[in-house]
Amino acid sequence: MTPSMNQQILLNSRPIGEPKESDFALVETPIPEPGEGEVLNRTIYLSLDPYMRGRMSERSSYAAPLELGSVMVGGTVSQVMKSNHPQFSAGDFVLGYDGWQAYGISKGETLRKLRKLDPNPVPISYALGITGMPGMTAYFALLDIGQPQAGETVVVSAASGAVGSVAGQIALIKGLKVVGIAGSDAKCDYVVKELGFDICINRKTQDLSSALKAACPNGIDVYFDNTAGSILEAVLQHINKGARIPLVGLISQYNAENLPPGPNLMPLLIKRALIKGFLVGDYQHRHSEFVKDISMWLQEGYLKYKEDVVEKLENAPHAFIGLLQGKNFGKLIVQVSSDPTK
Amino acid sequence: MTPSMNQQILLNSRPIGEPKESDFALVETPIPEPGEGEVLNRTIYLSLDPYMRGRMSERSSYAAPLELGSVMVGGTVSQVMKSNHPQFSAGDFVLGYDGWQAYGISKGETLRKLRKLDPNPVPISYALGITGMPGMTAYFALLDIGQPQAGETVVVSAASGAVGSVAGQIALIKGLKVVGIAGSDAKCDYVVKELGFDICINRKTQDLSSALKAACPNGIDVYFDNTAGSILEAVLQHINKGARIPLVGLISQYNAENLPPGPNLMPLLIKRALIKGFLVGDYQHRHSEFVKDISMWLQEGYLKYKEDVVEKLENAPHAFIGLLQGKNFGKLIVQVSSDPTK
Repeated sequence: MTPSMNQQILLNSRPIGEPKESDFALVETPIPEPGEGEVLNRTIYLSLDPYMRGRMSERSSYAAPLELGSVMVGGTVSQVMKSNHPQFSAGDFVLGYDGWQAYGISKGETLRKLRKLDPNPVPISYALGITGMPGMTAYFALLDIGQPQAGETVVVSAASGAVGSVAGQIALIKGLKVVGIAGSDAKCDYVVKELGFDICINRKTQDLSSALKAACPNGIDVYFDNTAGSILEAVLQHINKGARIPLVGLISQYNAENLPPGPNLMPLLIKRALIKGFLVGDYQHRHSEFVKDISMWLQEGYLKYKEDVVEKLENAPHAFIGLLQGKNFGKLIVQVSSDPTK
Repeated sequence: MTPSMNQQILLNSRPIGEPKESDFALVETPIPEPGEGEVLNRTIYLSLDPYMRGRMSERSSYAAPLELGSVMVGGTVSQVMKSNHPQFSAGDFVLGYDGWQAYGISKGETLRKLRKLDPNPVPISYALGITGMPGMTAYFALLDIGQPQAGETVVVSAASGAVGSVAGQIALIKGLKVVGIAGSDAKCDYVVKELGFDICINRKTQDLSSALKAACPNGIDVYFDNTAGSILEAVLQHINKGARIPLVGLISQYNAENLPPGPNLMPLLIKRALIKGFLVGDYQHRHSEFVKDISMWLQEGYLKYKEDVVEKLENAPHAFIGLLQGKNFGKLIVQVSSDPTK
């Protein structure tokens, strides 16, 4: 890559089922010049998240589909290179939404969402995970919809992931029994030994329904659902009266060409339980509550956080394909350029 | 039937799929004598309700399955014949739970639930419908889970039924646009012309999803779900952000041998909507709120109520089989003996 050139990854074709590397195209373009009131950022870290799969499809989802040929979207932690905006200066570290590219211009809506980052007390990359959107998702979906009460039992799917790992740890802080579900023994080990979950079920080697029954002798009061599909179906067999299920993601079906059927809802009626969909964007007005608690818990050592860092933007497609297969271990980010804070 | 004998309908065999008449057995037994503290009732009206199908199965449901050979359960309006209990006297009209039989003894738990009925201002049979459990289900599920707001759009399935017809009329009182779904043109006519619903969709002759789209140009804010299954699936395509779905019944699957899959839950996430199961038994402590409102609305003429009265206990099995097929029109009750208040 010529140093004066930008590197971008475009949506080349709409995936059928699992994305392939050929669905992405790596191009080089000139580094853009920021216009009046605009900011030019150099991407240091790019966040890879399951929701991006939805944006690649034509299917209606909670955001408009990406146009073919446009830069893949995504949250970024960057350093400001040039600023024509009074609130930002060259050298600032910022959380933005520049997508899969080495340099991005913040303007209009993305400029309004651009936020300066303090490189202390936590690494700037955390803003893509535990102190950012995934952490905030865990925090509000668990506390607001899940209404966890000390002594209850919570089950968390995708338990070692960016959202699930935080949800489970917050539930521990709140005094619940926490049962994780993850896709490998290594992830289960991490969840129990490092994060302190009470139990973790390997959904690939164990019969989920009987393992849940054994792990939750008092039934399930809260299910933090990152996956939907067959995991939700198994959980519903063991929910308690008045159970609460925040539906935060449907990872199990993001690659599906046709939406598969969901679980039978009879248990909801019998147990007077609720499932409620959650999108973190609705909680921006309560961001400060989240920051206050999460910072305190991080400083006091109650929260642990694991990143899965992939080097170089060109490796983003491969890493993203693996993310949808559950191959990442911890919050998946791409290191696009060097981090001067390290 | 010998006048001195009781007539009872027993669960003869567990139905496979739709119940058959041979799953029931009509027997004559001596009229029982009430013991110390007990009450003997003569059944005037027996309520037939979809939930009874669940009690006939071995499958776990929200109540224990009936034993083979026991009297079919059900709510009843009766006249007290003999009372050994200070709170009841011969001649009283009572709401009880004597089941499918001509005479029943109230004792223990059923005695504690026995309630005296005033034959004014509404017919005593209403206690099995609009002023009883179905009406209370409509009232609390709509108001408590549905949280209807004036100007919003509500969709009600099984709209001419005992629960749906009341839910829709309460939504009208609250100022919502009300769209019913029913299984025949005659039912739709009734729902619109008699009850005042804005629109009713005949699910047997219309494509439900496109009909809902046309009927609800501003989307669906509340779905009062009596049925689940494919109706819920179609509704989910058109829900608004923050929609509320009280799940009150799953009529569509009560005859199913294996629980069918449910709808895909992606719309819940995208629209941050909620589905919550509802059982009216949880609301007994708020019975007086319901009675106050429903009595006022009935007296002021805001609520209309239709009964589908089948004569003679021996016809209960046939009527019940038809109920599960949607053949009833209005609240289905069996007139077991004469009503002295008429």
